[in-house]
Parts: sequence; structure tokens; C-alpha cells
Amino acid sequence: MVESRAMRYATPAPSAVSLADPVLAPRVEANRAATIPACLKHFEKEHCIDALKLRWKKGDRWWPHIFWDSDVAKVAEGMAREIARRPDPALARRLDSLARLIVSAQRPDGYLNTHFTLVEPEKRWTNLHDWHELYCAGHLMEAAVAHFEATGERFFLDAMRRYADLIAKTFGRKRGQMRGYPGHEEIELALCRLARATGERKYLDLAHYFVDERGRKPNYYVKKEGWQEWRLPYLQAHRPPREQREAVGHAVRWAYLCCGMVDAGDARSDAGLLEAAVAMWENATERRMLVTGGIGTDRGNEAFERDFKLDNLTAYAESCAAIGLALLSRRLHDCTGAARYLDVLERALYNGIPSGVSLSGDRFFYQNPLASGPDSPYARERQAWFYCSCCPTNFARFWPQAAQLCWAVRPGEVRLCVPAASELRLESGLRIVVEGKYPYDGRVRVSFLAPDPEVESVKCKGKSSNGALAGKATLPFALSTFNLSLRIPDWCSSFTLAVNGKRLAAKPKDGFVSVERAWKPGDEVALDLAMPVRVLRANDNVEADAGRIALQRGPLVYALESVDNGPALHRLSIPAKQDFRLVAAKGLPRGTVAIAGTALETTRPGDALYSAAATRTRRRRFVAIPYALWQNRGPAEMQVWTREA
Amino acid sequence: MVESRAMRYATPAPSAVSLADPVLAPRVEANRAATIPACLKHFEKEHCIDALKLRWKKGDRWWPHIFWDSDVAKVAEGMAREIARRPDPALARRLDSLARLIVSAQRPDGYLNTHFTLVEPEKRWTNLHDWHELYCAGHLMEAAVAHFEATGERFFLDAMRRYADLIAKTFGRKRGQMRGYPGHEEIELALCRLARATGERKYLDLAHYFVDERGRKPNYYVKKEGWQEWRLPYLQAHRPPREQREAVGHAVRWAYLCCGMVDAGDARSDAGLLEAAVAMWENATERRMLVTGGIGTDRGNEAFERDFKLDNLTAYAESCAAIGLALLSRRLHDCTGAARYLDVLERALYNGIPSGVSLSGDRFFYQNPLASGPDSPYARERQAWFYCSCCPTNFARFWPQAAQLCWAVRPGEVRLCVPAASELRLESGLRIVVEGKYPYDGRVRVSFLAPDPEVESVKCKGKSSNGALAGKATLPFALSTFNLSLRIPDWCSSFTLAVNGKRLAAKPKDGFVSVERAWKPGDEVALDLAMPVRVLRANDNVEADAGRIALQRGPLVYALESVDNGPALHRLSIPAKQDFRLVAAKGLPRGTVAIAGTALETTRPGDALYSAAATRTRRRRFVAIPYALWQNRGPAEMQVWTREA
Repeated sequence: MVESRAMRYATPAPSAVSLADPVLAPRVEANRAATIPACLKHFEKEHCIDALKLRWKKGDRWWPHIFWDSDVAKVAEGMAREIARRPDPALARRLDSLARLIVSAQRPDGYLNTHFTLVEPEKRWTNLHDWHELYCAGHLMEAAVAHFEATGERFFLDAMRRYADLIAKTFGRKRGQMRGYPGHEEIELALCRLARATGERKYLDLAHYFVDERGRKPNYYVKKEGWQEWRLPYLQAHRPPREQREAVGHAVRWAYLCCGMVDAGDARSDAGLLEAAVAMWENATERRMLVTGGIGTDRGNEAFERDFKLDNLTAYAESCAAIGLALLSRRLHDCTGAARYLDVLERALYNGIPSGVSLSGDRFFYQNPLASGPDSPYARERQAWFYCSCCPTNFARFWPQAAQLCWAVRPGEVRLCVPAASELRLESGLRIVVEGKYPYDGRVRVSFLAPDPEVESVKCKGKSSNGALAGKATLPFALSTFNLSLRIPDWCSSFTLAVNGKRLAAKPKDGFVSVERAWKPGDEVALDLAMPVRVLRANDNVEADAGRIALQRGPLVYALESVDNGPALHRLSIPAKQDFRLVAAKGLPRGTVAIAGTALETTRPGDALYSAAATRTRRRRFVAIPYALWQNRGPAEMQVWTREA
Repeated sequence: MVESRAMRYATPAPSAVSLADPVLAPRVEANRAATIPACLKHFEKEHCIDALKLRWKKGDRWWPHIFWDSDVAKVAEGMAREIARRPDPALARRLDSLARLIVSAQRPDGYLNTHFTLVEPEKRWTNLHDWHELYCAGHLMEAAVAHFEATGERFFLDAMRRYADLIAKTFGRKRGQMRGYPGHEEIELALCRLARATGERKYLDLAHYFVDERGRKPNYYVKKEGWQEWRLPYLQAHRPPREQREAVGHAVRWAYLCCGMVDAGDARSDAGLLEAAVAMWENATERRMLVTGGIGTDRGNEAFERDFKLDNLTAYAESCAAIGLALLSRRLHDCTGAARYLDVLERALYNGIPSGVSLSGDRFFYQNPLASGPDSPYARERQAWFYCSCCPTNFARFWPQAAQLCWAVRPGEVRLCVPAASELRLESGLRIVVEGKYPYDGRVRVSFLAPDPEVESVKCKGKSSNGALAGKATLPFALSTFNLSLRIPDWCSSFTLAVNGKRLAAKPKDGFVSVERAWKPGDEVALDLAMPVRVLRANDNVEADAGRIALQRGPLVYALESVDNGPALHRLSIPAKQDFRLVAAKGLPRGTVAIAGTALETTRPGDALYSAAATRTRRRRFVAIPYALWQNRGPAEMQVWTREA
């Protein structure tokens, strides 16, 4: 089902929002202070910078990897988003050098790819399915747009326009053009952003071409590149995307493809593309998603598996895939206004995304399984860097958007999508300030304040940094009469709402409660979301979770870690009906809420490998911490789904 | 712990025993009627016979595989054991041709290996760790010994002596010899058999050399063949076997190595070798064995995993490894008299071994996991043949030994190791006949009968076809006064014993009850083993089986199959305390006992992937069949360990 597209939402500009909550704000700060610098350091050390300086020569002990350019571009995008969020002259200077360095590597014809410039120039465009050229190009374009939006400078944008022009000349259905398309999707959504930033419809044409040519028969990869027919679903090229209904193949590619479909579809009111994206999103989130918002459980291919196959220890759930799902879900919300997309966005935002990076911001998980122990196929500690470091660099560009993801706007309405403590500054100067300890507490206070004389009033033009709707939804914020819509999350079954101390009997409509009035400084809205510990059970088709429960409170999924509970977590089972207690989490940031309760520990006497001896059970305390925070206190066993007692 | 070696047991000759039970006898017959002919047919079709005819030439579409000779040898051994068990002139003629064909492929210097004769003669002995030459030689020697024992003809034995002489000249510690040893063990035990069959101690010397040179530093594989140090445990070559205490690496190799250690150690009273084999057996069976007697759970390497890692769906448990464990366990019993080895032998004999072959005898499982469903990494139906067909050919030689495995003898004692309906014919002509429906029923009747005038009295010289003790334990069966020892299995906690109708208050000693008297025709011993359904739980270190139970009755481990229970077995849980009923198994041989009982089927309402909805439980009937018989009624889901309700 595609919801009515009558409502279209935009994302406020980065400078119009800020965070002050206990969870997201520290992540954004760690990203600025640690992740971005760490990435830049690794780029130096790993020769990514040398590659852009075109310094590689035969015989060197390193060579520019086929996806290095994308890593650098993603961090450049992150830096741009960071300075757009909050002025930072030092970072701006580093970004300027980096952007100029990137542009310096461009070939006279517009081409920009260090690997295929330095190492294998003769192989340009010869292996689209595997060699990531168009993927890298997409990230470069995204970086250029972000750079332009943050600085107003055009040199990077113009360079990437020339690259896009070369690609438009190279690929297409005209005589002499290649009918190829990217093996790793990304450029589709990037071209849509480029089209909006430049006002050039030709880039949108190219995005549509890439989306629509994909998977056509005769298949380009099979016919021209000798790729195996049976492997086409891996890269979503088994049939045209608009005919696809199932989420298949490499999960990151899939998410980026769907983002491109939504962007391209929305820009041209192409309902077919949107419907296909929605159907795939439904399949992904209703049958193939971990409770943390992780997707792509197959560790062999970083790919989706069959419906309801959601094994815990082996779940791959790449950090990038959770980010991709969040970005896609936000886009779908913006097109449709439906809250269900935000429920998924929030699930990933508080669980499957942040689990991929340490609180310190400089250690990363590539995989985010739901259990870990001696038999884990994955690293049991976060790593400083990876041979393929798409995940750290994706965090670099994701976190600066966190505040924007909490808000959405359209004419006559301001939406609080995620009620984290934050602030939205309207064009009128009016400030909407959210206070509270969300997600640790359901008490949300929204205050309307007069302009802050110390802060320059920032225009909120409704420009979408995610790109879906830039320029389309200019919000007349000068008017003070508008709807304030507050999302009632899917996990919340009871809430109260009061405006200026007067309780309203508001019923949520499509996941939101709305209050329309002429807002003025001093107004206050009080939203109290009941936030009990919820005992979740998976759909009974999920074999891996049969007889198991997971604990969720608010948007946070909880996990047992051996740090709190000792080893051999498999011996524990938890009675679903009990009074769970909220306790302070030891060794985690002050304010982190852990869940304590009673578990049963079952042992079987004797050393025999198998015996008919009866088991013994003792009651003991257990402590669960937010899943996203596991492995921040040293190596540990961890599990999300515990046997129900 | 190594038990006292004061008692040594021998295996009766194949012609002195026969089976009449409902489980093993049909397997032996299916092996004769279907498995052996199927193997011979595949040998023709797959060019194994052409290879022995030395017909391969460059450009042929096939080439002799490095382990083909071993496959043919194992079937030849099986044919020899089959005609030794029961005269069969037609089969004897086929064996004669096959043995002559094998011998015809021998090189003038004694070498016999079709691959390295035809395809890569220059590579003889150049890759011991991987290329199976000495492994194939071992199976050829075993076949030759079996052929000699069955027919009395020497041509095959003499040919393999010449091969053994060549190997003894080639390998050793003298100047000019290679200090190598087999990558896949087998020849060690074969050389011990050859030594006993020929009385030549030089073959025993060579067996000792191979066992003792293995794993010495500097390591032969690392130094001479460039094998990686870290991969040495895979082939048990990380240290000398007599220093090993853990069961590691490829499980079949491990089992055959241990058999060789026991044979070589026993022949020379080398306690160090026996102690090491016992310690490894203990580690394997007390921490690394499936409840079915399967070993080698790692599907990547057909290898042992760490203690207590016994995952069900992915458990590899190669059929050959279960056979190897049974043969090793029997050898250890024969050296020590301890019943615990027979408990493991019986576990494999009734579960993990027969599961590898269809009741029809012509379809095979290579892997024997404890659960199977849509996510199984293995074939979900038995296959007619494999690229590497070690398993079918191992059955061909295993089943003819089944009756011998039920009995053991030593001076003054006859042991009923497995109380299946069978007969042992003593040299005196006295027949000991076991009647009953074991393993489906615990009622065992042992009668002493006068010589059968229609059956030629067969000498039972106590020659061991397993080879451990041939010639050492000549039993004075002419004496009618001896101990009859009946094994009380580890699963049996209650039994009664009566002799000629008079109940004896016998207490089991080391797993046996013994009755000594002057036995005469007409004597009858009644043993009634209580055989309730036992609810097994795994050691609480086994994560995979936490909160789960398995059902065992007598020696049979039971499994739920979707044929009886419908799909989605994961929704079922079984209360441990209930009155299980014994019922007829539908679609399985008459007499097969299934277990019926009450299960709880748990469903969670709604389509949501995750929800806090309470689960619903309904009581329903379940049926479990013997694990060994699963997938004999078409493809099905299967599981051994079910959640405990």
C-alpha cells in the first residue's frame, strides 16, 4: 500500500536544528570529535590521500582501491554537513583542502576515479557489476552537493557536474552509448540531489535511466560482462526495479536503490517507482528485519535472506545497511506522511545504527548480530578500521543529520518525528525547544521561545539535506498559526497530552497527535509517553526466536551482556510476567537506563554430555543494557533474544 | 583413565555369528542386496573400473580421482566380509574378478595407485598431506586381508605385501628414506592387520613408524610440503599422537589414527599409545559427540570443534566418522573390557551410522545433522552417489560386521555386547541364540541349543576381523563351562535376570552381569531391560541444546519429522513429565516403534514481525520416530532436540 501522497514533508536545514538529548547529541559530538578525525587520519595512513594526489606508480606497495574515492567522499560529505550544522572554521579549512584535492584528481574529460586513472586506465567502465565506479561517482556527487549547500562555493559542485555530464554522455539508450548501470547503486539518488542543487533536469533524466534500465532483458551484466544469471538478484538486476516487490540481494545496494527510486519517482510523480519501493520496504521491514532495524542477515553476501530467516549469532546486519534503511524510511515518510516509516527509522536510529560505533566514536562494528560469544563468526570487539571501510565513513556523514531526522516540516505543519531533546528555529525566530531524557524517559516538554538574541536567526527554507523535497516545501514560518504534530511511536500504547497545562483528549491519527493554534513564546506542550518495559516476541515464523523474548523500552532494544550477567547467557531464561526495574547501567554514561529483573538459571547436574538427570533452576538477578551500547566495556558475550522462562 | 588391560577380547569369526533382529539384520541384507551392487554399478559408470584397467589417457573426459582406489578397495573388503559371513558363489566370483583387476594395476615395483600411475606418475609421494596415496594403500591392504580371510587365497594379499614392502623401503628414518607419513590416516591400522594376517612384524614396525613419526619436529609437512603450521591439527600432525589428549581435526582421519594407535599399541603393549587414544576418545565422546554418536561437527573441515560446540542444523557428522568411532570404540573395549566403549559403539550403531543410508540401501547421507529444514546447509534427501563417495563404500564394508560387533569372546567368557537377536555358534557346536525385538523391546532371551545338523559347524577361533587381537585369544569353546556376560547398557537403570526360570539378583559389574556355569542345550537366560522413554538433556555447557530435550528409548534416539507432525517444528515444545506412548510408526517397517505424546504448539497472533502480543498455546499430539529412520518417507523437516515445555 502506498499512502496518499497529498502530504509532502521536508527536512529542516542543518543550521535550523540542534540536539540536547542524552543519546543522539553525544553521538553527534563523538562523530565530530573522533570519527571524522579518525577517518582523515586513516586516509593519510592508508594512502587514500596519496591516491587523490595521483602519486601511485607501478611497483608501489599500495594501490588505490576501487572504493577509496567513495570513502573519502563520504567523509567530505560528513564534514560539509558538520559545518552546515554549526560553524567550525578549522574543519571548514580542512574540508576546503580536501574538496580541492578531490577536484584536482579529475581528468580533463570529467572522469574522476583514482583507481581507474592510476592503475587500470584501460578498464574504465568495463566491469560495472563489480568495480564500483558509478558508486564512487555517486558519493562524490553527494559530497559536492553537501559542500555547496554548506559553503555556497561551486567549484566542487561544478566539477561533479562535469563528471555527471560525462556519465550522461557515456550511458544511455542512444547509438554509441553503453546501456549499463551501476553494480552498486548510489548514483541514482546522488543524481537526484545534483538535479535539485543545480536545477538541471538532465541529471534527473540520467537517474531515471539508471533506475529503469536496470534488470531489463537482455541483461546487460549477463550479455556484456559475463555475470551469471542466478547472481543478478544479488545486485537487484534480475528484473526492472519498478517490477520488484521483494527485498533481495546485497542490503546496502538495495537500500540505496530504493532511495533513488523514491527520489526519482517523487520528482516526476512516478507512482510506479514509489509503489515498488514501498512494497520492497514492506517486505524488508515486515519479514526480513532484525528487531534492531538491522537488515541483510546473510553473512555470505551481506544480503537479505528468505522471509523470517533471522538468525541471531550469524546475523550480518551491516552498519551501512541500517543507515540505508533509515535514510530510505525517512524518504518514504516525507513522500507519504505515514508514521510507520518513522517507526522503522527510529528503530534503526536507536539500535542497529549506533551499535556500529563505540561511544568514543573511533571503533566500529561492520556487522551487528544479535548475539555474540565464542562462536561468533564476527569480530567480537569494534575495530579501528577495515580493509573496506564503508561503515566508519558512513557514520561520518550520518550523525550530522541526526537532529534533522527528528523534525519534518510542510506548509502549515511542524512534525516532531523523534521526540529527542532538540531545538528547531523557525524563520520567524520562534524557537521550538524539546526537553526531556528521551529515549530513557517518556516525558517530553515542547516549549515555544522567543528568538535567542545571542544566536543569529537562521532561515529554515525547508531544504532537505536528505534531498527528497528541496525547494518544494517552503514553509511560511512567519505565520505563527500551524499544526504541531507529535509522533506517537508504535511501541507506545498510552500517552497524555497537555497544552499550557490543559490536558487534551487527543487521539492519534496515523501515528501523530496534532495541535493547531497560533503559537507564541511561552506556550508549552507536555507529552507523556508511557514507557513500560515491553516483552517482545517475534512472529512465529521466525525459527531462531521461537520460545524467546526480547526486551524493549521506548525505542530501545535491550541486550544481556556477560559484563553484567556473567558468562553462559544461554543458561538464563526470563519470565515474561514480572516487575522489571529500571536501574543505572554500570560503566556506561550517567543517565543510561538499564533493566533489571529476575531470571532463571538452569543447570543440569553432572559432567555427562547427555543424561536424563533433571535440571536445577535458581532465581537470580539479570541486567539488560541498551543493545546499541554493548561492547563498550570490553569484550563480552551478548544476546538480545533470551529464552522465555 | 585406561582400564586394566588384563582382559582382552576377540571378535568371533564372521561365519560364527548371524543376526535375526528387526533393525540390524535388514540393514545387513539391504547392504548385500542393494549397497554393494549400487557401488559396483557406480564404479563402472564413473570409470573407477576403467582406471584399474589403466585405460585412461590424456584428453579423456574423466581422470582417476586420488581416492578412487580406496573406494573400490572398501567395497572389495565389504564383498569379502559378506562372503565370509555367508557363502555366496556369485558374489565370490565378482570379488575374485575385482581382486584380480586391482592386482593387475600394480606396478612392477609394487606401487598401486591408478591416479599416480596414469595421470601424474612424476608426483608419486610428493604431497602426502593431501593426496591420499597412503590412505588408498591402507584400504587396499585391508581389502587384501579380508579377501585372504574370506577365501584363503593369497594372490591379493601377496600383492599388497609387495606394496607394503615398497612403502617400508620408501618411508622411514634410514638414510635415503622419506620421513613422511600419511595425510589421511588409515594405513597404520591396515599394516597391523597385514602383520597379523602374515605374521610379519616388519609391517607392525612400519605402522609404529607412521604413528610415531607423525607430528615430530621439524614437521615434515611444513618443512617438505609447505603446509601451514596452523593447519597441522586438521590432520593430527601438530604433535606426536602419543602426546595428544584432545580430539581435533578431520574426524575420520582422527578415528582411523586412533584405531591404528590402539592396534599398534596393543600389539606391542605400548601403554603410551593406548593411553593417548583413550584420552582422545574421552574428549571426543564426553565433550564433542552428538547424541547420535556423530562426531566432527564442523562443516567447513569435517572436523571436531571446541568442547560442547554441538550445533544441530549445521552438525556435519559424516557417516564415515560415526563408523570410525564405532570401530575405535570396539577396539578399546577389546583391549580393556570396559563397557563404556560399547555404550558409545551402540549409540553410533543404532543412530549416527544407520542414518547415513536409506532403508533401501541405495541412498546415502554424507552429513548427519540433528535438525533439517529449509535452512539446512546439507542435502535434505539422501543421494545416490557423491563426487567423494567414501560414505557409501564405508557402509559396504561396515554392515557385514554388524553381527560380529554384537559379540566378544575371551578364554572363559562369552560377552553379549549388544543384545540384538542373533546367534553365536561355538566350536563345540553349541549355539547361543538371542531372541527378542531389541532395540524396540528390552525382553532378551538367550537360549543354548544343540548343534544344528543342517549347518556345518563353524570354527570360532576368536580371530578378530577388526583385527585387534587375532590369534591371541583362542577360546576353548569345547569346554561348556564359561561365563556368559550380558551387557547392561548405560541407558538402562533397571533390569531382571533369570536362568532357567530362576531369577538371579545379579548386580552389574563394570556394565555387565555374568553367569558362570556348565552350559548345555536347553538352558535359557532371560534378561529384561527396562526400556522407558528417557528425556535427555545435554550438558549445560552445550549452548545449542539449552532449554531443549531429546527423547531416547533403549539405544534409539528419536526425532520429530514433519511427515508426522506437520511443518514448523520450532513451534512445538514438549513437557518432560508425561506418559509417552509407544505407537506404530506410519510408513516405516512393521515393528518400528514410534513415540507419541503431548506437545505444546505456541503461536503468536498477528502478522507483525515483532510485537508484545501474548503467545497462544494449544496442546497437540506429537510423534517421534527413530532418528536413524528419518527421510525414508520423502523430504521432511526433522529435529532431535525440541524445546522443553
